[in-house]
Order: sequence, then structure tokens, then C-alpha cells
Amino acid sequence: MSTTLFDKLSWRYATKKMDPSKPVPQEKVDKIVEAVRMAPTSSGTQPYHLFVVTNPETRAEIRKVAWDQAQITDGSHLLVFAAWDNYSEGRIDAVLSQLEQERGKAELLTNYYENLKANYLPRDAEVNYNHAARQAYIGLGFALAAAAELDVDSTPMEGFDPEKVDEILGLKDKGLRSVLLLPLGYREADKDWLVNMKKVRKPREEFVTELA
Amino acid sequence: MSTTLFDKLSWRYATKKMDPSKPVPQEKVDKIVEAVRMAPTSSGTQPYHLFVVTNPETRAEIRKVAWDQAQITDGSHLLVFAAWDNYSEGRIDAVLSQLEQERGKAELLTNYYENLKANYLPRDAEVNYNHAARQAYIGLGFALAAAAELDVDSTPMEGFDPEKVDEILGLKDKGLRSVLLLPLGYREADKDWLVNMKKVRKPREEFVTELA
Repeated sequence: MSTTLFDKLSWRYATKKMDPSKPVPQEKVDKIVEAVRMAPTSSGTQPYHLFVVTNPETRAEIRKVAWDQAQITDGSHLLVFAAWDNYSEGRIDAVLSQLEQERGKAELLTNYYENLKANYLPRDAEVNYNHAARQAYIGLGFALAAAAELDVDSTPMEGFDPEKVDEILGLKDKGLRSVLLLPLGYREADKDWLVNMKKVRKPREEFVTELA
Repeated sequence: MSTTLFDKLSWRYATKKMDPSKPVPQEKVDKIVEAVRMAPTSSGTQPYHLFVVTNPETRAEIRKVAWDQAQITDGSHLLVFAAWDNYSEGRIDAVLSQLEQERGKAELLTNYYENLKANYLPRDAEVNYNHAARQAYIGLGFALAAAAELDVDSTPMEGFDPEKVDEILGLKDKGLRSVLLLPLGYREADKDWLVNMKKVRKPREEFVTELA
């Protein structure tokens, strides 16, 4: 019997207790990271950076500013999605430059990114950061699907103090702002209050409207 | 030979030309929609609605306010992700009420959503809308992964006039704002300039930092 991706997307849940004695094999972490790297982003800018934190002290510090959520240290790997704090000429030029190197120069391409700069650069940093942060959520979606596909548990988290996490990871100097945490690990089922609870989602007729 | 999800995430791309003569089977659309419904959201509120538009006139109208992107009408189904324009007491109470019905009442649960309301309700509508919109991007990630898994092509789009799409779909009265479009269909390879181009992503060492 084969288990499809769709079964696995139902199987996954925001794991509340992870087993500190069961690390996720590096090969699986690499595949999850690769899925995030493959995720599409607006105009292909990939405007966020992915940190894979295994260092125990760093994770302990992050846990302190994240409502003491134990998965951060009980899991074996902590993914931190950190969005660009702003779009800049240098960042967009680097995207164009890589495209030109890998696909060749093309006037349409150059014009596209010139237009993008004309649109993005005059905007408030906060508007641009918010746009970049949204792209990180697509990457999170890919990471969650990839983890489920590999039978790896994960817990998406917005509940942390982003400024403190930025400090811990030295993100400000890199022009980054932390957006999402995603601990990876394996559920410790007998200590997880959520594991046997019914998965609750709105019924399709409430969540979806068909316009035919 | 089995093709894994990871091969498929590399196979997918933002399809530029879809074949109007090849509709996506309803069974596959249903699975993609189901993946979105299963996607996690902050505090489980699922603060967005999914429209599945097949009506040709409606899609033609949307295409006009979306830079005339042909996939909107060449594909067979158009997904529109529309986020809540704000969090409200009624919306959050409905989430709690469904949880109570399906899992039973619990003081911790009640307190959790009382706290959530205390945090969300005083905030600006724009802050809440932006938070809701981010959740839709997780759903987009699930839709993209699900479509790829089913060998269905798709094109994620931010490039449209959201206020005009809101008008076309009558979203304002529903307290919704359009965030993302996702046409589904099948590539018409000989007319798609992007199909044979190399997929360009930042190298892992540039996109990812390991903190061990």
C-alpha cells in the first residue's frame, strides 16, 4: 500500500512534544531544505534566508524568547525563515545577474527587473519587508509538505519575539528579519496532548466557493 | 521508476502558456483544493476563503485586471485566495465553537481564544488583514506542491489589481480581499517561452546558513 502526499498532509499536525532522543537524519533535513530552496517567490527574488540551527545553546536562547516552546530544543533541527528587511538595488541586481549568467542576457529580462526596481525601491521598507515575508510563507508550505512526505514531524511557529531572535542570530547586520520558526523532529506520542485529537478544519462547503 | 515529490517540485514552474483544450480533471482539482483546506494556519483560524472559478466570463473579466495573463482563461480552473479583511469576534468565536464541537469544551481552549481576541481585535484592520494574507501563502505552497504531485501545471500570480478582483467577485461584502491567483491547467509546451529555460535558484550556500 502506498501512502500518498495527500494522506501525509492529513497525517501532519503541529507537534507539541518532540522526542529529544530521535534526531532527524541529515539526509531528510537536506531534502526539506531543498524543497524550500525550490519554492517559487515573487519575480524569483527569493527574498529570504533560511537558517538551519542545530547548536543547542542558540536554540536554548531562542526558546526563551519563544514562549518556552519545548519543540525548539526537543527537536533536532530548527529552521528559521528570515525575510529581507527591504528590497535594494544590489539585491535585485544580483537576482538579474544570476539569471543572465544561467540563461543568457535578454532585453526583456533587463527591462523586467528595471521596472521591478522602479516599483519596489521607492516604497517604505516596511511594505517591502512584508512582501518579502509573504514569500517565506510559501517556503514554509513547501517545508511542511516535504517534512510530511518524509514522515518527519514539524511545528510551524509565529509565536516568538522577532526582535530578540534577530539579536540572537545577528540578523540586523545582514538586513534580515525573522519571520517563522520550524522545529523538525519526531513526535513523542505519549507526552503529546494534541497527537490523538481530531484534526479540525472548516468543512469544504464553508471554506470553498465554486463559481461555475 | 517512481517520481518523488522532490523531483516534482523541481519539475514545476510558473507555466506561461496553458493549453485551452486540456482541462484538469475535477478529481485532481478536488485533491488540490483539499490540500489547501488541510494547510495549517495561525491558531487554526483558516482566515481566508478559496474560490474555484471555472466560469469563462468571470475569468475573462479577471484577466483584464491581471495584466492580460492568458493562463487565467487558458487554464481550466482559477483558484483565488481571498483573505479576511480583519479578525472579528464573530469569526474567532466560530473557530472556537467548531473546535469545541469536534473536540469537546476545555478551559485551556476557551482561554486561548479569549487571549487571541484580546490581542487581535484592538489592532488595525490592515495589520490583521496582512496577518491573514500570510496564511494564504501557506495554502498556496500546499496547492503548488499538490498540483506538482498530480502533474498539473499552475502559475502563482500576485500581478493583478486586487480591488478590481474584489469587485468582480463581490468580496467586499463578504469581508474578504483577494491576495493570490492560481490558474490550473496543462502546459502548451511549444508556445511556452519558459518551459525549456533552466530553473534558476540561489545556490544552497547562498540561501542557507547552518548554525551547528
